[in-house]
Amino acid sequence: MVVSGTVGKVETKYYDFEGIKLDSGLFLGPITLAYETYGQLNPQKNNAILIEHAFSGDAHAAGVLEGEKNPGWWDGMIGPGKAFDTDKYFVISSNVIGGCKGSTGPSTTNPKTGKPYALDFPLVTIADIVRAQKQLIDHLGIEKLLSVVGGSMGGMQALQWAASYPKQVKSAIPIATSLKHSPQQIAFDEVGRQAVMADPAWNDGDYYGREKPERGLAVARMIGHITYMSDMSMEEKFSRRLKDKEHNFKFSTEFEVEGYLRYKGDNFVKRFDANSYLYLTKAMDYFDLSDDRSLPGVNEAAIRFLVIAFQSDWLYPAYQSEEIVRHLKRKQADVTYLEIKSTYGHDAFLLEIGEQSRLIKSFIDKTFHGYNVVGGYDI
Amino acid sequence: MVVSGTVGKVETKYYDFEGIKLDSGLFLGPITLAYETYGQLNPQKNNAILIEHAFSGDAHAAGVLEGEKNPGWWDGMIGPGKAFDTDKYFVISSNVIGGCKGSTGPSTTNPKTGKPYALDFPLVTIADIVRAQKQLIDHLGIEKLLSVVGGSMGGMQALQWAASYPKQVKSAIPIATSLKHSPQQIAFDEVGRQAVMADPAWNDGDYYGREKPERGLAVARMIGHITYMSDMSMEEKFSRRLKDKEHNFKFSTEFEVEGYLRYKGDNFVKRFDANSYLYLTKAMDYFDLSDDRSLPGVNEAAIRFLVIAFQSDWLYPAYQSEEIVRHLKRKQADVTYLEIKSTYGHDAFLLEIGEQSRLIKSFIDKTFHGYNVVGGYDI
Repeated sequence: MVVSGTVGKVETKYYDFEGIKLDSGLFLGPITLAYETYGQLNPQKNNAILIEHAFSGDAHAAGVLEGEKNPGWWDGMIGPGKAFDTDKYFVISSNVIGGCKGSTGPSTTNPKTGKPYALDFPLVTIADIVRAQKQLIDHLGIEKLLSVVGGSMGGMQALQWAASYPKQVKSAIPIATSLKHSPQQIAFDEVGRQAVMADPAWNDGDYYGREKPERGLAVARMIGHITYMSDMSMEEKFSRRLKDKEHNFKFSTEFEVEGYLRYKGDNFVKRFDANSYLYLTKAMDYFDLSDDRSLPGVNEAAIRFLVIAFQSDWLYPAYQSEEIVRHLKRKQADVTYLEIKSTYGHDAFLLEIGEQSRLIKSFIDKTFHGYNVVGGYDI
Repeated sequence: MVVSGTVGKVETKYYDFEGIKLDSGLFLGPITLAYETYGQLNPQKNNAILIEHAFSGDAHAAGVLEGEKNPGWWDGMIGPGKAFDTDKYFVISSNVIGGCKGSTGPSTTNPKTGKPYALDFPLVTIADIVRAQKQLIDHLGIEKLLSVVGGSMGGMQALQWAASYPKQVKSAIPIATSLKHSPQQIAFDEVGRQAVMADPAWNDGDYYGREKPERGLAVARMIGHITYMSDMSMEEKFSRRLKDKEHNFKFSTEFEVEGYLRYKGDNFVKRFDANSYLYLTKAMDYFDLSDDRSLPGVNEAAIRFLVIAFQSDWLYPAYQSEEIVRHLKRKQADVTYLEIKSTYGHDAFLLEIGEQSRLIKSFIDKTFHGYNVVGGYDI
């Protein structure tokens, strides 16, 4: 067992730059990007790993922020001795544009009007999100990332980095993700958007400084949570247990699973902007690297890929990871694939730390050194 | 190939009775039950088959109503020469209490107030729904049903008939259903309910004669539709096709699957009552026959069971039908099980007519005659 620790106290930093031209043809700027870093960049600047968060995540991936108790969302994976070993590697965690976690998004003040953008914020794509991050990586003086890693929407960004900047990426680890959303995935996103937009408080996106569309956003999040878990993990966690002893014959919360969903929904609205919900789900729905020209083959760049899926994940089922693998294999890319056993559903990429750590640690080490430093997977 | 025809013009009938005592302990009455019948009851009154509809269905299962074009919801299964052969059998299709299709439900006038019940309507269970139907079957002079059949919520009613009135049922055909809702199924129902209740127009259920909670109900229905289809059937039907040639970089409908869901949602609100959505999903969530004493074993009644599941149905997955089968087998009941190949998901029970027909026809014939009249399955 590897001794592992915490990165300790951390702080979120902000990088401001002029802006970027978006896929839509519009210009977005100025842009602020929230990010955190853990560990040290070596003098050769070849030990940098970029961590990409999922839909509702943020730059705070590891350690503890001043005045807060809970560690970052992937703290189990990032730190001394951990999967992303901060004793060896310089780990950057970047937030996304379009979100609401410190980076420029629909709730940011529009410099042209002095008011929040709301729906005047332009639609951004995963390629736009990565385009903005490229500015940050350039700013940090890193010419080539040792790895780009992420689960779910973070996995899309990892793939997009390989597609957009093949020469700037040594390896990519897309986890529990897809080359493109299936119609079912689009459908779940669209229902979430409709739930938000059905709330009169949404007011065509113009709700800043007044009542927010909290009920609509909570419903959207509840739908999301069902898709993040598995039938089995819900059975294990809640079964048909009631909050009280007997049925109350009312429409108030009575099954434990109902209480859980409402709690998750109500909590989410405190920390997430409804318009960002719309923009980021749309970015995922637009994402499509299934075209044969999208991802680089071995002739364009010698990127090493590690593709990870989870058995009970029905939101991003393993067959979608297998499609990524087939796609890369057709282009003779260096790709390793593993489907990890789990009952956690899509949430597994946040929860199945052990197996993921062994796999990723080994892969990163070999990418960095050219050989495996310790025992484990030889990939 | 069997020659099959239509039952032709039909009309919905209504049976009024005093009422019933509900599982909650409350009395509901008077009750009106909407129903239709096809074919003729024989003099021995032993050829009656009761058809139970799913959540949003109604009594109009076959034939065409005066002034309407579209046939009933299971017209492919009911008629001369069809699975439920109206040349031989007397087919009754009964609506449910709690709904909004002609039977007593939350939108019915409360005799005590002269206004619609709204949330004063008592919660009803699947056992209550069947208890009301028992009054209808008694009224029709039928002592023993040849079969009770239904898919989804209809399958719960078929199982409940066997549980509540084992001596009045010769066979039961529960299709694409479960002994009980899993927490995932409860979760989907609860999110639908929350979507309805989040709509300010819902107004604690008191919206009759004024603006209805249409947006909330449409969102609930959209969620439902995702669960009725399969990942594969959505891929086949929509893939990632756009309504227009290119992305519009807006939040309006652009993927075909989005247009389909919105259409389905918007249409549903014209024909369904939001409060009935709450009451009937709750009835399903309460349903639980997994207790060993719930269903009759061979010692209590010689009921023949035919349990049918569909391969791509992830809302009522085949493992739930297998649970029904195991449960019945433990009690040495006469049970046949088939999982039918299909890509349609849960909707398969409405769409996979061919295989279901052969199976059911054979089963019903043998239940009636004691042997198979024509070739096919010998069950």
